Amino acid sequence: MMSNSSPGSEFDLIAWARQRSTLGRRTVVGIGDDCAALRLAADHQLLVTTDMLMDGRHFRLSETSAREVGYKALAVNLSDIAAMAGVPIAAVAAVALPQGNAASLFEELHAGMASLAELFDVDLVGGDTNAWDGPLVLSITVLGEAMAPVLRNGAKPGDAILVTGPLGGSLLGRHLRPLPRVTEALAITSAVTIHAMIDLSDGLSSDLAHILDESGHLGATLHADTVPIHHDAEIASRTSSRTALDHALNDGEDFELCLTLDAVEARQLLARPPIGVNLWRIGEITQEPGMRLRLPDGSFSAVLPGGFDHLSRG
Amino acid sequence: MMSNSSPGSEFDLIAWARQRSTLGRRTVVGIGDDCAALRLAADHQLLVTTDMLMDGRHFRLSETSAREVGYKALAVNLSDIAAMAGVPIAAVAAVALPQGNAASLFEELHAGMASLAELFDVDLVGGDTNAWDGPLVLSITVLGEAMAPVLRNGAKPGDAILVTGPLGGSLLGRHLRPLPRVTEALAITSAVTIHAMIDLSDGLSSDLAHILDESGHLGATLHADTVPIHHDAEIASRTSSRTALDHALNDGEDFELCLTLDAVEARQLLARPPIGVNLWRIGEITQEPGMRLRLPDGSFSAVLPGGFDHLSRG
Repeated sequence: MMSNSSPGSEFDLIAWARQRSTLGRRTVVGIGDDCAALRLAADHQLLVTTDMLMDGRHFRLSETSAREVGYKALAVNLSDIAAMAGVPIAAVAAVALPQGNAASLFEELHAGMASLAELFDVDLVGGDTNAWDGPLVLSITVLGEAMAPVLRNGAKPGDAILVTGPLGGSLLGRHLRPLPRVTEALAITSAVTIHAMIDLSDGLSSDLAHILDESGHLGATLHADTVPIHHDAEIASRTSSRTALDHALNDGEDFELCLTLDAVEARQLLARPPIGVNLWRIGEITQEPGMRLRLPDGSFSAVLPGGFDHLSRG
Repeated sequence: MMSNSSPGSEFDLIAWARQRSTLGRRTVVGIGDDCAALRLAADHQLLVTTDMLMDGRHFRLSETSAREVGYKALAVNLSDIAAMAGVPIAAVAAVALPQGNAASLFEELHAGMASLAELFDVDLVGGDTNAWDGPLVLSITVLGEAMAPVLRNGAKPGDAILVTGPLGGSLLGRHLRPLPRVTEALAITSAVTIHAMIDLSDGLSSDLAHILDESGHLGATLHADTVPIHHDAEIASRTSSRTALDHALNDGEDFELCLTLDAVEARQLLARPPIGVNLWRIGEITQEPGMRLRLPDGSFSAVLPGGFDHLSRG
């Protein structure tokens, strides 16, 4: 780590980042040695998650600033830590920078990462910077800690299904600046026992299906009249020939949390939600496999992961 | 993590990797959830290092197999863990795969990583797979643990400087299959107190300079007649118009360890090296800053990081 094969400008980037790094609660050794070294809280498990963003695939540098890319790359990783009800503690970033404006791109990426890292008290403890003649690639790994991580596989029949925010239409711009639900997850898990949790990156129908599959091929009934629909989903539906609800169920990149818990605990939680935490009850887990939507008229429509079965056909 | 935005073949790669993963000593949750979860040994610090390899920059897929790339990407990270005298425990890999043969490339990369991971009992606990129309990029983050990590900044005047193997000419092919000196570092650190250590990725003159700088701007005298010269350095010198010693001092990618320790302890260590550990004493740390080479005739020649001051000029 930090051993760039060509010295000069690339190496200066590390000195630059090192000057800007502060050591937080957990960091013993930050940027500048072969590895970073951290101390976890006693009796905590270590959480690890990694995500890579590539120009032309996840964003276009012609449309999105490097600062937004840096922010988002860290945010999606923090969202994964939130989905385990973990506390993020540190991040490392590996980057492939286009030749020419490598240094200014790096500064922008760093600024985007640093703004979010500061907000969540995450130490940027290391990285690997490289220049090449290809497009920008940023790969971030985030470390977190949790006493009892919440997995995807603990859902039980009868559980209530909750989400932390309105869904759909994120690609209108919200997807570039998600606020990872780290604080919300910690607040909820200190109030109730969450059975299963995931962050909504692929879309509710796809991500909920992961919980159902991992929990022993359970099913879910969603309520068409309680799924919170984001205003962006309404806007998107005007030109997409899809309903706003379809957007809410199937669009990706919401980065809200979807969780399941005992129905009685859910009622108590919804009656007295933790301060600053928004929660919607959108349905329940069923023994019967598959996902279905209960429409206001009492009829049901099948829901498939990714929305392959469009509601318009139901 | 593991939340690929396009389903289908990419997602199958994760199922494929998940089937092949085994959970080792430290892994509580492996591939398949939002994060991996690990338990560290009690009273150990967590080590983190990351390295990214890009096609056209660090290798050429036209000349190097994806299996070799996977092996090397993990090896260089393990080498960083070795340089802190740590025990590697887990790795995550993020990859950008060229469209078309993404699946077969991924299998090859995985095979290369898995062969080395098995050797060092490292769990492949997660990753992020993406396909795009750019070149292959592989970014690996390795986690390790150490009771007392060995840093770069502990060298003292009078320390002996040791290396774990012959140096130079690695680019003839050895650089593709380094064997990280994890076991050697652990054996040495259990026998003596290492003051400072680094792995030789940029070349002895560059990497030793990091130790000197970090340890308070110390200097070093290297002995021309005891720096171990690899046979590859001799071969390279036949066509490079540089001496084999110049290659040994300045070529990169040896991935041997360079360490400093008390001169008396070094004598004891060299008299009874741990089984299977090769060690050469190549010089000593000096209060006087700068690096110099003591030639067999007793004269001295300056050594600059990266070999900018060629020996031929000495």
